Amino acid sequence: MNPFGSFFNAHHSPAGAFASFTLGLPGAKGGLGLELGGPADENIFIGFQRQDGAGYDTLPFYAGSSDDSARYDVSAEAKDRKQLLRPFSPEEITRQFHLGTDSWQAGDLTFTLYTPHAAVPDPATAKRADLMAAVVPAIFAEIRVDNRKGKKSRKAFFGYSGKDPYTHMRRLDETVAGKFAGIAQGNGTCIASDSPGVLSSLGFLIDTCLEPDHPENHQFGLGGTGALVVEVPAGKKKSFRFAICFHRSGTATSGLDCRYLYTRYFPSLESVAAYALKNWEVQTGQALLSNRQVEKSKLNADRRLMLAHAVRSYYGSTELLEYQGQPFWVVNEGEYRMMNTFDLTVDHLFFELDRNPWAVRNQLDWFVKRYSYRDKVRLPGDEKEYDGGISFTHDMGTTNAMSRPGYSSYECFGLHGCFSHMTHEQLVNWICCAVSYVKATGDKKWLKLNLPVFKACLTSLINRDHPDPEKRDGVMDADSTRCRGGAEITTYDSLDASLGQSRRNLYLAVKSWAAYLGLEFILESVADKKNAARAVEQARLCADTIASYRTPDGTLPAILEKDNPSRIIPAIEGLVFPFQWNMKSSLSEKGPYGNLIRVLKEHHRAVLKKNLCLFADGGWKLSSTNNNSWLSKIYLCQYVAEAVLGFKPDPLADAAHRSWLMHPESVYFAWSDQMISGVAKGSKYYPRGVTSWLWLKKTSA
Amino acid sequence: MNPFGSFFNAHHSPAGAFASFTLGLPGAKGGLGLELGGPADENIFIGFQRQDGAGYDTLPFYAGSSDDSARYDVSAEAKDRKQLLRPFSPEEITRQFHLGTDSWQAGDLTFTLYTPHAAVPDPATAKRADLMAAVVPAIFAEIRVDNRKGKKSRKAFFGYSGKDPYTHMRRLDETVAGKFAGIAQGNGTCIASDSPGVLSSLGFLIDTCLEPDHPENHQFGLGGTGALVVEVPAGKKKSFRFAICFHRSGTATSGLDCRYLYTRYFPSLESVAAYALKNWEVQTGQALLSNRQVEKSKLNADRRLMLAHAVRSYYGSTELLEYQGQPFWVVNEGEYRMMNTFDLTVDHLFFELDRNPWAVRNQLDWFVKRYSYRDKVRLPGDEKEYDGGISFTHDMGTTNAMSRPGYSSYECFGLHGCFSHMTHEQLVNWICCAVSYVKATGDKKWLKLNLPVFKACLTSLINRDHPDPEKRDGVMDADSTRCRGGAEITTYDSLDASLGQSRRNLYLAVKSWAAYLGLEFILESVADKKNAARAVEQARLCADTIASYRTPDGTLPAILEKDNPSRIIPAIEGLVFPFQWNMKSSLSEKGPYGNLIRVLKEHHRAVLKKNLCLFADGGWKLSSTNNNSWLSKIYLCQYVAEAVLGFKPDPLADAAHRSWLMHPESVYFAWSDQMISGVAKGSKYYPRGVTSWLWLKKTSA
Repeated sequence: MNPFGSFFNAHHSPAGAFASFTLGLPGAKGGLGLELGGPADENIFIGFQRQDGAGYDTLPFYAGSSDDSARYDVSAEAKDRKQLLRPFSPEEITRQFHLGTDSWQAGDLTFTLYTPHAAVPDPATAKRADLMAAVVPAIFAEIRVDNRKGKKSRKAFFGYSGKDPYTHMRRLDETVAGKFAGIAQGNGTCIASDSPGVLSSLGFLIDTCLEPDHPENHQFGLGGTGALVVEVPAGKKKSFRFAICFHRSGTATSGLDCRYLYTRYFPSLESVAAYALKNWEVQTGQALLSNRQVEKSKLNADRRLMLAHAVRSYYGSTELLEYQGQPFWVVNEGEYRMMNTFDLTVDHLFFELDRNPWAVRNQLDWFVKRYSYRDKVRLPGDEKEYDGGISFTHDMGTTNAMSRPGYSSYECFGLHGCFSHMTHEQLVNWICCAVSYVKATGDKKWLKLNLPVFKACLTSLINRDHPDPEKRDGVMDADSTRCRGGAEITTYDSLDASLGQSRRNLYLAVKSWAAYLGLEFILESVADKKNAARAVEQARLCADTIASYRTPDGTLPAILEKDNPSRIIPAIEGLVFPFQWNMKSSLSEKGPYGNLIRVLKEHHRAVLKKNLCLFADGGWKLSSTNNNSWLSKIYLCQYVAEAVLGFKPDPLADAAHRSWLMHPESVYFAWSDQMISGVAKGSKYYPRGVTSWLWLKKTSA
Repeated sequence: MNPFGSFFNAHHSPAGAFASFTLGLPGAKGGLGLELGGPADENIFIGFQRQDGAGYDTLPFYAGSSDDSARYDVSAEAKDRKQLLRPFSPEEITRQFHLGTDSWQAGDLTFTLYTPHAAVPDPATAKRADLMAAVVPAIFAEIRVDNRKGKKSRKAFFGYSGKDPYTHMRRLDETVAGKFAGIAQGNGTCIASDSPGVLSSLGFLIDTCLEPDHPENHQFGLGGTGALVVEVPAGKKKSFRFAICFHRSGTATSGLDCRYLYTRYFPSLESVAAYALKNWEVQTGQALLSNRQVEKSKLNADRRLMLAHAVRSYYGSTELLEYQGQPFWVVNEGEYRMMNTFDLTVDHLFFELDRNPWAVRNQLDWFVKRYSYRDKVRLPGDEKEYDGGISFTHDMGTTNAMSRPGYSSYECFGLHGCFSHMTHEQLVNWICCAVSYVKATGDKKWLKLNLPVFKACLTSLINRDHPDPEKRDGVMDADSTRCRGGAEITTYDSLDASLGQSRRNLYLAVKSWAAYLGLEFILESVADKKNAARAVEQARLCADTIASYRTPDGTLPAILEKDNPSRIIPAIEGLVFPFQWNMKSSLSEKGPYGNLIRVLKEHHRAVLKKNLCLFADGGWKLSSTNNNSWLSKIYLCQYVAEAVLGFKPDPLADAAHRSWLMHPESVYFAWSDQMISGVAKGSKYYPRGVTSWLWLKKTSA
């Protein structure tokens, strides 16, 4: 499938810095990206001088670079330079890819990147030292070189050509009084090292960084390429440490002025580098611990790779801001860079509750205080407006441009398809996230504060079932007036109606059933019997309605109306919530919703077939009528099928899913979500794959 | 020459913001550039709906834009959109290009840009209101539309698609509480309007900004194109006002942390827009005054155009910073973005002394306190080191990366050509600038403070003549030890030895003679007779030496040694300084240096021939042995020839020089300096053409 073998881009990202050192695909396809929706496309130079001194063996992460001096000296003849760099051939290189470390070995060179992937403690209560360690916007690297057989000293190096359009490459040594060596671009990115003997060098080309025509010219200020270079004596084996750092000072967002929380502790790139180098041991140790979290599991190799890959991509999208001194946790939406897209938040939930439960609370609070709204609803073909209620926006802005209160950047008015409103879905998402947060943390104070919101959510959800109480069946019938007569959509926005339409959607119906169960739990816990009864009544209606649509072949239609021909895997998606909430009886085939559970189990068994919801390669096809498939949702449904419904894992499917990510068209974007017939076509460079974190969790089996 | 006719890019820039609204070349070739070394390459949309309502007539400043919605909705069919925009054909458009205004008229639409080009008062003494007015990082625009013959209302618009890689387009209205309308990208650039009825609109395409599928969708947050749109009722003629604003908050430089001085008064893009709109009348009035400065002159049309063009490009490179509360004036070097390149400073001098004399002082102070150094010197082929002395770096950094104290970003060690040191030239440049500043301002306090520097400069300059006092002839013989045995170069760094070599260079010799005269004046003024005598003795030696090289055909060789075959126009360049200093007798053919003056005059007459220093088109060829020619230096030498030596202006040469700027390969870069055979090949998008400001000054005639 992938001619590059193990050559695929992966994120190497600190937590909350919206930054990524992306690396792994040959060419200028990776680099030090800050706030980008894709790889920085910079030349990355990593290499070791050959034993005979004639040139340098390199990892292949750069493009042939042209000589920039011609721009200044326009009359100069094109220089006939000898090729100093020789990339290792693919077969010479071995890559070891894990959650916390990523390592390439070739010839006498080993290059390892360490990404701690530390949980971020609650800034409101964390010790300063712990928060600093978690949010330092840096990742870590090591070059190990073996010159034991060498007869001469040989140079090792690590460098890059930054692509920021506004600032220049520079040597960091000058602003840290020589305490360590570094190459930087402006105040935004750098690579620093405190290993003895490391020299920082600038040049138009990596060649002149390595072999300047005069020794002092390694300080050439016009050089757009920088490298850290070190000599390894003959007969020695050595290792050198690096920190790859990011920094954005001042106001980082528009619309609402926020800054990065790390600027509390790290006022400059230099301060990041100093801290990172000082704490190199601890931080790389944390990266090794991260490895163990995955490697100790019993997951097959495909799942381990996808899980590590997905978590890395998630961290590359995380952004810990502060607004007026208060933390603000943002996960950006990969290539689209939408901020806290709620239908992603609900999928990141399981990972975040394990790591940073306060971040879930933080996002929920932002949704309530700035990104909620109240609407009316309409029935299809009927202009009359009925009571609606509270819901939440699709997102909070895009690309660091915060959207105005009560509105997302995504949602438009008057549409039926992509970019329409997701009012019902995001209402359900707030409920499911909020119940999950309360269940996971037992945070009674927050529950009490938000009880009015829970109640408003219940009313709003019921109103969207049907304006006429007599006609309510637990399933959404009414669209938000924000659609102006159009129709709401679901998170599967670029699919056909099988998953794209909200009204009477099977996926959303099961998730709504879960939301009603969650509300029942919340309202029971505060002894609000009346509202708890309303919730449970709706849950029963919903379960019964869904089950009633069972067709003779044991499947359920994607849309609970007429003779809808589509069959979808995410029918079972919503079961994840009661399972998270430990609602065993609700999920029991013999429990109060036994009929629904049996029907869903039967449905799942029936659709996992090649003419329905399996691709030819054995990968999962979320909808029988569309070639769009989202890996994050597949992971989630795999977990539900296995953990909740007792299905066996299918290694063939896992191999197929991995191969989609390794498709030559997919590998540039690190982990991507939306696959069309097994190729990443949308939702690229995406955070949502952390649903795979569920694989590490307990199953009911 | 130029198939685009009057279609060429020009800067429209505030003072000191390192910002440019570049516009004039068809396609996505202009835009709102902040801190860039070239045009921003953004789509700029300016247009007016057709009388029949079927589409929009536009100025042609955008490329065919693709529909970005496909990235989100990957399964959507490519939409078959009708073409809403129709660019006016070139022959329909009339452009009026002046120093302060730039205007395009076509059909019922007139679009005018107003650039105040105000002098910047000394921040140490200026009134707050005056400084705010001078440094507000905004320029101004107006759309005038005529719908008197229209039967329906028609929409006029002004918009752009920002290209900043880190931030998103947004509506400004939301953060100014609806006080005015605006479209912005992040916190860096915006177009705002307070004209009644103007609506801000976002969309994937300009089409959807103009005609959203639903009225409320003009607020679509994912739209990467923004426009200000306004309806013009049938029967009406209307005009609408805009401010085009720039902003960079926080630390703007690396190496040394500076911020933009305007952030004192304008903490945000919004505050810039509010001020700019409020002061629209005053600021546009200032732009009209700027027009008059050029238009009232007796310059021919070619010179008027080049002068206006050059001043615009100068402002695009200006950057008023502050460091620890103190102002720091920077002029960036066009496409190279080197900061305060001293051999440009000395050419900007005449313009700056007219406008912002404090800025000259400011630059000189920075050169003394951070960018001076002391060296030794060597003679060619001799490794022995002799006393050198003080000199100054080539520049202070590049692309907002300040270089370390005592070093430029440009200068390398051990070279003979481009990127070698310019020690002697920059020493002469400090002297010429400093004397000019004292002469122009009479600032005795500053003179007193810097007297030690002047004296050190005299000693340093003499030491570079020759280590052996007996062998001194006023002309440089010794290279800085920073060359490590290589050779110093001049500002003409990419030429052959005729202008590129410093040692015994005719151009530099005449400039050194001027420097000695200047030092004599300074030292006389403080009654330092002894040093004044040293200076005047060197001036005499220098003048005699130069004159002694007169060849039988009346020309001087470019290098004052052996049988150098090159002939150069900048032999006369240095005469500008004594002329500025009003040293009439020194410039008189009958004065103490009469022989030198007569020889230079004869030289100039003799080289201005087609086989020597004229191109076939009549343009000036600075060196007879090279096709490189710098327009800024041509302008300067034209001024010297006419004002000092009494030559008549040559309209044919002016026409040729204008045609070089209008060459199809040149027009993208606004004003450029370095022309190879009449095409801009280096030093593009450049500030140095303000030497043409001298054309407005008195002549001796």
